[in-house]
Amino acid sequence: MAVNLPLPDPKALHPVPGVELGVAMAGIKKPGRKDLLVVRLAPGATVAGVFTQNRFCAAPVLLAKRHLANPVRALVVNTGNANAGTGKDGLKRALEVCGAVAGRLQARPDQVLPFSTGVIMEPLPVDRIIAGLPAAIADLREDNWAAAAEAIMTTDTVAKARSMKVKLSGGVATVTGISKGSGMIHPDMATMLGFVATDAKVSSSQLRKMTKTAADKSFNCITVDGDTSTNDSFMLVATGRGPSVTSRKDLESLRHAITEVSLRLAQAIVRDGEGATKFVAVTVDRGRSVAECRRIAYAIAHSPLVKTAFFASDPNLGRILCAIGYGGIGDLDTGKVDLYIDGVRAARSGGRDPRYREELGAQAMKKSEFTVRAVLNRGKASATVWTCDFSYDYVKINAEYRS
Amino acid sequence: MAVNLPLPDPKALHPVPGVELGVAMAGIKKPGRKDLLVVRLAPGATVAGVFTQNRFCAAPVLLAKRHLANPVRALVVNTGNANAGTGKDGLKRALEVCGAVAGRLQARPDQVLPFSTGVIMEPLPVDRIIAGLPAAIADLREDNWAAAAEAIMTTDTVAKARSMKVKLSGGVATVTGISKGSGMIHPDMATMLGFVATDAKVSSSQLRKMTKTAADKSFNCITVDGDTSTNDSFMLVATGRGPSVTSRKDLESLRHAITEVSLRLAQAIVRDGEGATKFVAVTVDRGRSVAECRRIAYAIAHSPLVKTAFFASDPNLGRILCAIGYGGIGDLDTGKVDLYIDGVRAARSGGRDPRYREELGAQAMKKSEFTVRAVLNRGKASATVWTCDFSYDYVKINAEYRS
Repeated sequence: MAVNLPLPDPKALHPVPGVELGVAMAGIKKPGRKDLLVVRLAPGATVAGVFTQNRFCAAPVLLAKRHLANPVRALVVNTGNANAGTGKDGLKRALEVCGAVAGRLQARPDQVLPFSTGVIMEPLPVDRIIAGLPAAIADLREDNWAAAAEAIMTTDTVAKARSMKVKLSGGVATVTGISKGSGMIHPDMATMLGFVATDAKVSSSQLRKMTKTAADKSFNCITVDGDTSTNDSFMLVATGRGPSVTSRKDLESLRHAITEVSLRLAQAIVRDGEGATKFVAVTVDRGRSVAECRRIAYAIAHSPLVKTAFFASDPNLGRILCAIGYGGIGDLDTGKVDLYIDGVRAARSGGRDPRYREELGAQAMKKSEFTVRAVLNRGKASATVWTCDFSYDYVKINAEYRS
Repeated sequence: MAVNLPLPDPKALHPVPGVELGVAMAGIKKPGRKDLLVVRLAPGATVAGVFTQNRFCAAPVLLAKRHLANPVRALVVNTGNANAGTGKDGLKRALEVCGAVAGRLQARPDQVLPFSTGVIMEPLPVDRIIAGLPAAIADLREDNWAAAAEAIMTTDTVAKARSMKVKLSGGVATVTGISKGSGMIHPDMATMLGFVATDAKVSSSQLRKMTKTAADKSFNCITVDGDTSTNDSFMLVATGRGPSVTSRKDLESLRHAITEVSLRLAQAIVRDGEGATKFVAVTVDRGRSVAECRRIAYAIAHSPLVKTAFFASDPNLGRILCAIGYGGIGDLDTGKVDLYIDGVRAARSGGRDPRYREELGAQAMKKSEFTVRAVLNRGKASATVWTCDFSYDYVKINAEYRS
């Protein structure tokens, strides 16, 4: 079902020195699937992260935020249960898991970051997770990214991993990452987990800034259904085993590579959006600020009416203009708005372009990937968000998720 | 498909002295269906209205707002074409229709309020509308509300009309109204039209206030899909042919009756929501302000994940808590939140109620109508919004609307 999203090629996923990954089938929700991931970090690794803004953030999110203050030695991720909406008992359970991982890796519990994804408001099956740890730890290897990507899937249909090399002045650094998510996907992080690691040596303050930049340009620019989850986490690890960042140019190159890998991972989530049959970029150009461009882009990308029209390859331009109109720009001069579907200008000066023919719009929208571009003609700012269409299968997947 | 929404009983729709309604089949989009409504108001009638906040508001909305400054003599409503996103040409066409109505009713064009609903961004077929006017005018009768309700339907499956009598000190007044809408339904007015009339005699400033109150408590408390349309209009007419409002108590009684009729009309829109199988009240209690209660209620009522769970009668409480968590209260103490499905307490102090059993939640949600109630325990304010579930048919209806 995913839109143009090939399975990750394990050979194209470069190991990151200092990062080992091990997976296991712990039977957390269903037997026979990889559902537990342990990541061991070599001493000296730096970690930064951004987390969900949801007030009902999950117990593991609370702990991970807290443990980030320490030298982190391991990450542990389970699927099948989000450990969210579980109150104090949830915290206790997440901490038990951290303790069990720490005991087996010669670390302190507060040096372990826990992550959970899956059903909300059910107690975390700690026993099953702990019972799965020995197998996951026995499996720890640096060339295990593909298995790790698989182990964090929930309603995902395709594992998501990306990797690239980047040339710094002191040598070539690696950036490799995995992500998961396909429903509850929204700005301000989605039910999504993203883990990206590099062997570059970079200060922790630089790493924190890079995490923020990468998240803002990737995971915070996607939407599937507008639901911001309780468990979203994006973590960036720098092991320092590779070349150092010694110049502004190095920093720029590394930031670019990390943002690029993050963007591909984020887009992979949209391509695998629940029920998605189309992958759509929504660009808003010539607004007064990036913020207002994003607001309008999200109004379009969230509209169920627009998204069902995408599904039907129906160039129902009125629905798009309508979403622009309620996107929250109080002084928008609609008489200046132009609208394009890929190269086809559909609306001009707020009305139908006299030369527009519906076949052209339908043709563009029949493709599995296209761009909707609104030009506001009131400034110089621009923003793009990525979304998918809204199909029968979205309803099917979400009406039947727990049964 | 509509949820517990009986056809209006023409005999229960009391005529409003001074308001005559006439309908016709003008073949605006499809032949053989009522798609044109003319309402003639007796001289001396007062009219107030509230309109869509959408910046791409339709040409008829612009004109109706402008013409409201004059003594209004008629309303003309067509379905099949929204005359929105049509620029200056759209205004010209709407004005032509006003002129044609005015010419036939001995009024000025700027004494006619035009309304359109249907497909956006296609030119209004003025000729067909004008050709339909003689039949609509020949049909003008005071006891024609049921036909009027039918004539303004688009994707509606059931005509929507309500009526009641209200006792004022000088006699009994009538309040009767019709509405339409089933998709693109959102606060700040929906793709919805609502027309309510009374024969009570009330000052125009009182009428304006009453319109605002009624809209805020009815049409601005419903959502089907979160899309705010280009054409939403809610009009309130007072003909002054009946008893006068002479006391504060009269004013209160009339306001209550008008709000009640408006609320029933608004709820009818949700009951007839595209693909709806459930009618759900979402109440948020004990918040600090009505505004924050509404924000949380809408976060729940808009979530596609919550709405697909409603469809599946799946008491997936985590999704509801999750929506509460991203509802925009930055200092929400989630540890104080309780959650009820009808009488069943599902969550207590932010976590699952120990005595809650899933069968109880499922039982409550299997009903065609139920209430989701979140108690924030941080203040004294409260708010309720009404919504429906999200089914396969929503996608079907909207993917196939134009074909």
